[in-house]
Amino acid sequence: MTGHYGLLSPIWADTEAATATSDEAVVYALLHVEAAWAETLAAADLAPTASARAIRRLCDEQADPDTALIGPGVLAAGGVGGGNPVIPLLAEIRRALAARGESDAALHRGATSQDVLDTALNLIVRTVVAGITARAVRIGDALAAHTQTHRNTLCVARSLTRHALPTTFGLRAAGWLDGVREAVSALHRAVDGLPLQWGGAVGTQAALADRHGPEAAAQLTDRLAGRLKMSSARPWHTQRQPMLEVASALAGVCAALGKVAGDVLFAQRPEVGELAEPSSAGRGGSSAMPQKQNPVLSVLIRSAAQAAPGHLATLYGAAAAAQEERPDGAWHAEWPALAELLRLAGGAAARADELLTGLQVFPGRMRATLDGAGEALLSERLMQHLPEVLPGGRETLQAAVRTSVSEGLSLRTLLEEELNQAPQSSARATARASLDDLLDPAQYLGRAGEFVDAAVSDFQEIRSMWT
Amino acid sequence: MTGHYGLLSPIWADTEAATATSDEAVVYALLHVEAAWAETLAAADLAPTASARAIRRLCDEQADPDTALIGPGVLAAGGVGGGNPVIPLLAEIRRALAARGESDAALHRGATSQDVLDTALNLIVRTVVAGITARAVRIGDALAAHTQTHRNTLCVARSLTRHALPTTFGLRAAGWLDGVREAVSALHRAVDGLPLQWGGAVGTQAALADRHGPEAAAQLTDRLAGRLKMSSARPWHTQRQPMLEVASALAGVCAALGKVAGDVLFAQRPEVGELAEPSSAGRGGSSAMPQKQNPVLSVLIRSAAQAAPGHLATLYGAAAAAQEERPDGAWHAEWPALAELLRLAGGAAARADELLTGLQVFPGRMRATLDGAGEALLSERLMQHLPEVLPGGRETLQAAVRTSVSEGLSLRTLLEEELNQAPQSSARATARASLDDLLDPAQYLGRAGEFVDAAVSDFQEIRSMWT
Amino acid sequence: MTGHYGLLSPIWADTEAATATSDEAVVYALLHVEAAWAETLAAADLAPTASARAIRRLCDEQADPDTALIGPGVLAAGGVGGGNPVIPLLAEIRRALAARGESDAALHRGATSQDVLDTALNLIVRTVVAGITARAVRIGDALAAHTQTHRNTLCVARSLTRHALPTTFGLRAAGWLDGVREAVSALHRAVDGLPLQWGGAVGTQAALADRHGPEAAAQLTDRLAGRLKMSSARPWHTQRQPMLEVASALAGVCAALGKVAGDVLFAQRPEVGELAEPSSAGRGGSSAMPQKQNPVLSVLIRSAAQAAPGHLATLYGAAAAAQEERPDGAWHAEWPALAELLRLAGGAAARADELLTGLQVFPGRMRATLDGAGEALLSERLMQHLPEVLPGGRETLQAAVRTSVSEGLSLRTLLEEELNQAPQSSARATARASLDDLLDPAQYLGRAGEFVDAAVSDFQEIRSMWT
Amino acid sequence: MTGHYGLLSPIWADTEAATATSDEAVVYALLHVEAAWAETLAAADLAPTASARAIRRLCDEQADPDTALIGPGVLAAGGVGGGNPVIPLLAEIRRALAARGESDAALHRGATSQDVLDTALNLIVRTVVAGITARAVRIGDALAAHTQTHRNTLCVARSLTRHALPTTFGLRAAGWLDGVREAVSALHRAVDGLPLQWGGAVGTQAALADRHGPEAAAQLTDRLAGRLKMSSARPWHTQRQPMLEVASALAGVCAALGKVAGDVLFAQRPEVGELAEPSSAGRGGSSAMPQKQNPVLSVLIRSAAQAAPGHLATLYGAAAAAQEERPDGAWHAEWPALAELLRLAGGAAARADELLTGLQVFPGRMRATLDGAGEALLSERLMQHLPEVLPGGRETLQAAVRTSVSEGLSLRTLLEEELNQAPQSSARATARASLDDLLDPAQYLGRAGEFVDAAVSDFQEIRSMWT
Repeated sequence: MTGHYGLLSPIWADTEAATATSDEAVVYALLHVEAAWAETLAAADLAPTASARAIRRLCDEQADPDTALIGPGVLAAGGVGGGNPVIPLLAEIRRALAARGESDAALHRGATSQDVLDTALNLIVRTVVAGITARAVRIGDALAAHTQTHRNTLCVARSLTRHALPTTFGLRAAGWLDGVREAVSALHRAVDGLPLQWGGAVGTQAALADRHGPEAAAQLTDRLAGRLKMSSARPWHTQRQPMLEVASALAGVCAALGKVAGDVLFAQRPEVGELAEPSSAGRGGSSAMPQKQNPVLSVLIRSAAQAAPGHLATLYGAAAAAQEERPDGAWHAEWPALAELLRLAGGAAARADELLTGLQVFPGRMRATLDGAGEALLSERLMQHLPEVLPGGRETLQAAVRTSVSEGLSLRTLLEEELNQAPQSSARATARASLDDLLDPAQYLGRAGEFVDAAVSDFQEIRSMWT
Repeated sequence: MTGHYGLLSPIWADTEAATATSDEAVVYALLHVEAAWAETLAAADLAPTASARAIRRLCDEQADPDTALIGPGVLAAGGVGGGNPVIPLLAEIRRALAARGESDAALHRGATSQDVLDTALNLIVRTVVAGITARAVRIGDALAAHTQTHRNTLCVARSLTRHALPTTFGLRAAGWLDGVREAVSALHRAVDGLPLQWGGAVGTQAALADRHGPEAAAQLTDRLAGRLKMSSARPWHTQRQPMLEVASALAGVCAALGKVAGDVLFAQRPEVGELAEPSSAGRGGSSAMPQKQNPVLSVLIRSAAQAAPGHLATLYGAAAAAQEERPDGAWHAEWPALAELLRLAGGAAARADELLTGLQVFPGRMRATLDGAGEALLSERLMQHLPEVLPGGRETLQAAVRTSVSEGLSLRTLLEEELNQAPQSSARATARASLDDLLDPAQYLGRAGEFVDAAVSDFQEIRSMWT
Repeated sequence: MTGHYGLLSPIWADTEAATATSDEAVVYALLHVEAAWAETLAAADLAPTASARAIRRLCDEQADPDTALIGPGVLAAGGVGGGNPVIPLLAEIRRALAARGESDAALHRGATSQDVLDTALNLIVRTVVAGITARAVRIGDALAAHTQTHRNTLCVARSLTRHALPTTFGLRAAGWLDGVREAVSALHRAVDGLPLQWGGAVGTQAALADRHGPEAAAQLTDRLAGRLKMSSARPWHTQRQPMLEVASALAGVCAALGKVAGDVLFAQRPEVGELAEPSSAGRGGSSAMPQKQNPVLSVLIRSAAQAAPGHLATLYGAAAAAQEERPDGAWHAEWPALAELLRLAGGAAARADELLTGLQVFPGRMRATLDGAGEALLSERLMQHLPEVLPGGRETLQAAVRTSVSEGLSLRTLLEEELNQAPQSSARATARASLDDLLDPAQYLGRAGEFVDAAVSDFQEIRSMWT
Repeated sequence: MTGHYGLLSPIWADTEAATATSDEAVVYALLHVEAAWAETLAAADLAPTASARAIRRLCDEQADPDTALIGPGVLAAGGVGGGNPVIPLLAEIRRALAARGESDAALHRGATSQDVLDTALNLIVRTVVAGITARAVRIGDALAAHTQTHRNTLCVARSLTRHALPTTFGLRAAGWLDGVREAVSALHRAVDGLPLQWGGAVGTQAALADRHGPEAAAQLTDRLAGRLKMSSARPWHTQRQPMLEVASALAGVCAALGKVAGDVLFAQRPEVGELAEPSSAGRGGSSAMPQKQNPVLSVLIRSAAQAAPGHLATLYGAAAAAQEERPDGAWHAEWPALAELLRLAGGAAARADELLTGLQVFPGRMRATLDGAGEALLSERLMQHLPEVLPGGRETLQAAVRTSVSEGLSLRTLLEEELNQAPQSSARATARASLDDLLDPAQYLGRAGEFVDAAVSDFQEIRSMWT
């Protein structure tokens, strides 16, 4: 049996999301759903308690690789015949119970493969989301700290790659924080709504109701949901909106972190040097080129953001193709796409946690870039203040800016010369006197500080619900 | 000037969404944002009222093709130079104002192209979503009616294309209704959160605050938001989560309706005949083959569901690539993808409205299919009841089912024969007596009726918020 | 160490493609490239032969799980630090050599991680494509046989789901054959052009040329290519067109097979019954519903076709983002997408082989459907022949067809009645006499037989190049 | 009637591809196919020449907006009923012919909507590809010129954003040239194979063969293909591989140009300044910030590369869903995706032509970056030459490199100091003497020049086939 362990996916190799979505974890989750259902039946005196206990014991043993009886490889191979892993799992469970002389009377009563698999995958979604949330708290804390520390750290704002105006690094980081907060909030909303799937073969609960009556069926469903801490719901076998909300929120997390990584990747370039990845042992080294420190964390996060949209598209296409009472392919296309989205979002969160808690910020280099951008960076501001007092107005000012940029002359000097041409007046005098202020980037930051504070406050407010 | 009018997009040609997202509508929305901002400034005595009025007049004139001054073709061509249509729009507005001797003093003060374009697109989103909502009410009403009318209409449930168990057509339609309700609800949540974009060149509101002070800047922003009936927000130029939520909800609508269309496409096939599209004049005809009535509405809806995921993927990729304070390509990639998603969702809703309000349901054909599926359709139920009384138990029953299917024999007869082999007992007598009941599909519907009622009730509850 | 073995991917679990793309196989391929390079150097007396032999020995041992020294899990975890698995692999190789007292002097000289990984992945591509080709020969043979056997097997042609005209099952299968032939041909073209990657750190071969001179560097590159049976080429580190051609051809294979699976899925439905999947032990069974035989192979193939486009999109996006001399994320996004495309295409080919070599065709059911479609199915033909002789011409005929369809009357009878209204004439007599022929579907097949023959012949021609 | 003219798509607004894919152009192409078919029939004396001429006249008139009789808006609206624009087009043609007293006897004989639409779209593909080819010749010429001019222009090679080694700008541009050459070559291969679609209602040519016999049908098909300069082929209504090859090649063009744009976008940043977009009037200006010159062309090209993969995915999904003899949605999903891919590739080519023919290259800034990267940039080379002579070998060298980088010391000086510690020897002397050479980037370019020449030569060879 050969397998995949993340060799070609360093974005999530060795993370908690990799473990939580491994085939071993899927087998466990499937068994856990079966065990919970057996227990639900037994608690209602509708199945033998001993059988339920035996199933639970198998499940508990499965949690530990040393005692696990059921190999994912066997189920993977066996799942080809019936098209899903639940069918061979049930055979394995029955075999194991029989070998122990235990009864399977409480096993899988009135359930269908899709019930067990959908519900198990939702359990895994929840585990991964819990991991992402823990990372998001650390990421948010790191970003809030950067945001506040650099509330007044001047840097150049870039628009379509060009230097546009002054801003603060705090505001840029506040934008990152907003993105993470909104993406994770959407993820929580989606997971809160993630329902139990329990409908029997075609979503009517016919077998269950036939055996125990519809009221008991309803009650058992609610109790199973309670046991699994999920919301109870009508069957949604081929109504996949709940899955789509989770998937788009996971892709949203990748996008939010991808945006951060992209900004870091540029800012840490040797030509810029405004940021640097944490310099930890074992990250980014190159044996052949010892001078080279690769921004591995950002690179990996970006790769997740580039891969996520394709999986999301698959899930939306599959949802639309979910025919009749169980789809003929679309359901199967969902599983690996969802699982990989979980790994990508979880992996990106893990790398972003490391990246952002250790992010190095170089205010001096930011200031140097800003200074290098020159006084022309303030030209928007000058356009507001000077045209009425400058001879030639707007055109004169634009020409001065262009001359300053193209010939590397001091814009201040050029403007003073132009002002000297203006007739003496108090306006002229005021304008001349105000040039220093007008050209001071720290005085042209608008509501940056206020926005920073609000972003942090919004995060703090929601943070308490994340922990 | 050549253009696109939906010739290759019959899914949305000639719908309200096509109009609402046309280039003419975009020009109007851009002008409307500029006018609203001018009015906001004027109302605060920060810009001349006459100028604001002149801008509003241009906007009002633009609403009527006969008086519109600004052609979208000119802006489209002019937008290449600066990369977006706002730059040439401002030039056109200034030209028009100048030609009338009006002042442009209130125009675009402290705003940036992205502010105007993002906000205008959000206005268009809102218009399209209002149209989708109106359609969704009609779709929901139609589905609720089908659901209730056919609460007890028996039909065969299909799983991986095979006949699985009995269900009701009402329950299938209830699943459709659930999908539409959830998708449209997600769309409403997304649109409710859709914020004003108003941050100036780099998201600091520097120009605005510089001119009027930060408090006034804040107040003006809130007032503009109020005027446009949007929520006020921090600038989100490169934090595109709000856009992603809208986009995924639009794609969710396409998926929900695509699922319905797929089910209809199968059920209306000549081999099945359980449903038919409304037979309206001018739909689905073929001149060469007069016997052929194409299910055009379902075909078009499905095409929307197949196209939507690609656009959604583009938007997630773009969000992740939204670098620094304004992206170098990703923002531009967003516009057509969002606009096409709006058209696809709007068009699909329009076609689905026509499809579902006129959907023809043929209970007789459903019953015939069910009967054709034979008594073996109830085998799950027999597996619950008969093994303990049948000699040979489970194996005997499975063999009987297979024989019945492969040799076309009556399962009832086979079972009676098997029961006859059993020793006389009251259990045997009961089993024989219960065969009629056991093989009656109407008695094996589980909680179908209850689920139907709950789906309708959930829709009714939310419907009041949609109208 | 947990992993993925295909539990959620029954489309490829347990296939040759799964093995060929496993992490174990990737480690082997990486080692094989390193060994081949060491041998190339040694053969040119540029590195010690003993070191090259020691590396080859490690590689050979790696082929066997019992002797393999290097675990993929270790490399997966180790690859996070440097962002790719080659860096930890080199460390492992050096450690193993050192432990044996062997020299690493021939190891990785002048190469870069990307050289080794790109080339190794190409080796894996080639292995998977060889497997797909073997399957394609069997698929093609099966389809050619079906095509010829059913060259004259009448069935109804369906257009937009509706019965349109008669065709033959042979022609439908010929279309499947054309699709497979073209898709696999494109795959071969792409793989034939798949070049060695060997450029050193930045694509200049600086280290190599510095050490041995540019001529030797060129020669060594060619020899390595020869040893690996690849075409030699200029470095293409960030020029990913070769990868895109492979990827789109793999997705094309999924699409071609997905089209077949879709047709089978419909035709094997209980309502249609014109085809059936092979009924092999262990495929498609349902324990709860013994009457139900799921078309698992087609379902799985379709799921591959639904998943492939998302991966393809990722690869095109990554190619566009392949910045400078090595990309900052896009290269990393490529690996899992390419590997999964290989598995999907390889898995789909394996399942399609099983599906099509065992496909059951039911000409009787096809004929029954055709007969059920009625004489109206020939209306296109009647439109060509009857209007000039029928009183009322085209309109009369169309009305007759519609009446026949809506009221279930014999079209033949209706037409005879109409013809009786026509004035006596030889044309009328001829028309009446020809009605039998006109309504015979076997006489309205156009060039179907000719197309069938040509499709088989085209396949036979290319088949010889595939084996 | 409202429409879309590229207002939100500055990447293709106002380009030849926009015109060639406009709805007006589609109507013309549809008419052209109908006219060519009428002429084919008439030339074989199988339809009245006068009717064929009348149809051709309508087509000729349609080419000129002033004389065009058939409005695309009418067809767009009319196409909803039947699901495609050919049905209303035929009605319009018949109406126009009737109004002129002309016969429609030669119109659409034995053809089906899909024949006409697929073939017409292929004509449009060919037109757009001709335009792309013309642009590609200019792009290739420009790149070849840059490549040769800067064959020896030193610049820093960047790997994962970090300075890695020296290279030449010529080699980077050669990589761009390779990408464009391969992408356009793939496009030509795909278009060369693009076949006529002519199969009648279900791909049998039944109507045609019924009327004229199969031999004549074959001959007429070949003649139509000849008249349209397409290859003749078996019908491929639901075998969409030919379309997929075109689509992936178009996406490949977007990817190749997107890679170039990405490199330019970074290199033209103020922090880098190694390249600049052509400074033409009307491109990239910002009214509010006169100092800011946006790289609009690169931004737009990148946006095309970001949007293309989504459309490609749609086409592959649609091909897989092309059921039976005509698909129930998938064919409809194809049209807008293909048309948009044509516009994106055509638009990107147009912008890239402007970008690359006017690209400004600043060797001085490249050299400055290289010098700024410092002597550590050559550390890979030093690792090859110095370890054997340095006391402490490899470790000493790595430490020196790190010290040099972290403390900003001269690596040369550090190495000399280390060498001084070594025992006197001729090796030491040689090493000391060679330091200048070892640290000269121009002496560590490997085979860059040779690769450059080969890239240009490969382009020149194929160029002759493009013109």
